[in-house]
Amino acid sequence: MGSTRRKFLSAAGAAGLGAALGAPADGAPADGALADGALAAERDAEQIEFFGAHQAGIATPTQQYLQFLALDLVSDAVEDLRAVLQQLSAAARLLARGEPVGPLQTGALPPVDTGETVGLRPARVTITIGLGPRVFARGRFGLAHRRPAPLVELPSFAGDALKSGISGGDLCVQVCADDPQVAFHAAHDLIRLAAPAALPRWLLAGFGRISNSRSQTTPRNLIGFKDGTDNIMVEDHRELERFVWAGAPESPAWIHGGSYLVARRIELLLTPWDDSPLDQQQDAIGRYKLSGAPLGERHEHDPVDLRARAGGEPVIPSDAHIRLASPGYNHGQRILRRGYSYVDGLAQGSAAAGLLFLCYQRDPRAQFIPIQRRLASGDALNAFVQHVGSAIFACPPGAHPGGYVGQTLLGGG
Amino acid sequence: MGSTRRKFLSAAGAAGLGAALGAPADGAPADGALADGALAAERDAEQIEFFGAHQAGIATPTQQYLQFLALDLVSDAVEDLRAVLQQLSAAARLLARGEPVGPLQTGALPPVDTGETVGLRPARVTITIGLGPRVFARGRFGLAHRRPAPLVELPSFAGDALKSGISGGDLCVQVCADDPQVAFHAAHDLIRLAAPAALPRWLLAGFGRISNSRSQTTPRNLIGFKDGTDNIMVEDHRELERFVWAGAPESPAWIHGGSYLVARRIELLLTPWDDSPLDQQQDAIGRYKLSGAPLGERHEHDPVDLRARAGGEPVIPSDAHIRLASPGYNHGQRILRRGYSYVDGLAQGSAAAGLLFLCYQRDPRAQFIPIQRRLASGDALNAFVQHVGSAIFACPPGAHPGGYVGQTLLGGG
Repeated sequence: MGSTRRKFLSAAGAAGLGAALGAPADGAPADGALADGALAAERDAEQIEFFGAHQAGIATPTQQYLQFLALDLVSDAVEDLRAVLQQLSAAARLLARGEPVGPLQTGALPPVDTGETVGLRPARVTITIGLGPRVFARGRFGLAHRRPAPLVELPSFAGDALKSGISGGDLCVQVCADDPQVAFHAAHDLIRLAAPAALPRWLLAGFGRISNSRSQTTPRNLIGFKDGTDNIMVEDHRELERFVWAGAPESPAWIHGGSYLVARRIELLLTPWDDSPLDQQQDAIGRYKLSGAPLGERHEHDPVDLRARAGGEPVIPSDAHIRLASPGYNHGQRILRRGYSYVDGLAQGSAAAGLLFLCYQRDPRAQFIPIQRRLASGDALNAFVQHVGSAIFACPPGAHPGGYVGQTLLGGG
Repeated sequence: MGSTRRKFLSAAGAAGLGAALGAPADGAPADGALADGALAAERDAEQIEFFGAHQAGIATPTQQYLQFLALDLVSDAVEDLRAVLQQLSAAARLLARGEPVGPLQTGALPPVDTGETVGLRPARVTITIGLGPRVFARGRFGLAHRRPAPLVELPSFAGDALKSGISGGDLCVQVCADDPQVAFHAAHDLIRLAAPAALPRWLLAGFGRISNSRSQTTPRNLIGFKDGTDNIMVEDHRELERFVWAGAPESPAWIHGGSYLVARRIELLLTPWDDSPLDQQQDAIGRYKLSGAPLGERHEHDPVDLRARAGGEPVIPSDAHIRLASPGYNHGQRILRRGYSYVDGLAQGSAAAGLLFLCYQRDPRAQFIPIQRRLASGDALNAFVQHVGSAIFACPPGAHPGGYVGQTLLGGG
């Protein structure tokens, strides 16, 4: 890793970045010095490689903080779309290594990197890029014939109360990191770098990830339940191949190894939830609140037995969330969730809390959409949640050194 | 609900909380078990004692996350005010120890503690309580004659664009913790426990503290500069006595050992800031961006020399933020800052970022107000910030075991 970075740094020098950083005028260590010695070793441990067969930030153990950014393209020229994706990819590669996205010591010019992470480690930051359905609209970029069949506009679901200002988007940038300052900085500087060809549409900060790795204990969401117990785990390569990575026959070759992301902004109605009896809360979820065990079982990871009955009634009620979301009720289908909690001031006498539900899958037509249809029509949790934002994105496969995310669709270098 | 909770709290006080929690029905470890063995030792290291001469959360090294809550009292009965303060204090004592604020295993009743921190450590949580000026309004609680002279309504400052919904409040609850879930949970459950006598007025989540301890490296704010270099440090007991703790002659005895908190919600206009040359940014602050050194110096902690000149001009410009805020320009006055960054979606084409500026002092009439007057009229930073929220609170001294915060004002047990 060290030698990779040295190579990068000399390449950056050749390309002008190192030179532009220049020698500091104020006695501070040169920026490059941050990569030397012991700090470099610590930094390596906190780096997640940007390049690879898949984009980072999907089958990556969830980091602790999120900034989710949606952008709209102002231009309808395909070269501008390509340039934005190249720009975002180049910056994402630097950010993943804990490097500034551009010069800091600029004298009479504005700094390119805004500087709020100078001295911080990479904090496992990942940047995951996706393309919304309107990128493939007829007569826009000339890409209508390349649109993947799984990239459908989501249908209306019962109970939806969607707001357009926090829905949709031509591009998405999911930033995850173990430091909220690092996540903020990435979103902040990527917004700057994408302008003026792309302008921000919505941005949401999150914390309190759900788990998606056997290395993590299952965290609790803001309604007090463990979330992620039955998630696809990033260690389950067979499940990832089967349920997460786009492939033949339903997806075109350019997105093989990529995935489809559905984002739903879900407000939690905390006051009625908090005022509900524990028994009702547990029946709504289908699990015990403290242990996380399925109702009728003892331990969090005990299998969910949807057929168990007691006193003539199903132990896990017919409208319990885990029953309706379960693979057993959805033709065996699963999704990889990596949602985050958010808080946004007050609403209705309590904290305005919510979940930015994020899920990755091979084909939303077979996965998110039928699962959400079932939940929207029958989930006991519906009394306590409201879907207010919605978006879908096609996330290309990972980039290779010298390339960018989207190159398989748009070509160029 | 109120009386149930009061009954519970007195039971918990008398018999110990563990008894009230009861045995779990689902095979989960009893809540009390979390306090056993090795976990207890780790927990101790993350506990900040609630009781003491001063409230925790003032001269406490800043934790990483904030939830700042302002409440309005619905009742004008002094017994209700006293009961709310007793309720908040009792819960704060439990939260500081990493204990739930009430029963979790409630069967057919709603849980008292909402549960989202079960299994988490205390994360150095502190809860700091204050009283706004309207608590002392004539004809309200009969406390007008007890109002401390330093608890004035803040005057209007040049450039203020205050919104009433995110300003003021009869009570404040500053929650700080090293885990955002722990901070959220405290705010969430304190809102519930304060109702119906007090209802939430505004709530803001923060991260990226400024430093106030020699044990911390100085973090950067969202405009990329180190923030807190010249703060009063919590290790400076003489400075705390002189500038932070309320005392004679200006404050009445009931608040001696307490402090006055000024909160200002300051929006950052990131786009014009980010588009400014580095030189202009540095001149506006009066420090170098990367090193944090005062202009003309080499190291962050080099003394600020306001008289230094070069080429006939002051090295630190006449409108630099650190010049106008400096003790040398303000009769030697200093304040203890513990502000936090926040992000709230988008504004004007960039992240809607800001600073919840929080400062503690002995007398705002001699400290915050004249300093802010000077800044409001001349600070070069004014082109890039806007004050949109404002509040002031009198924070009583700390509580003693068996007592509550506010007891020195309101009596009772």
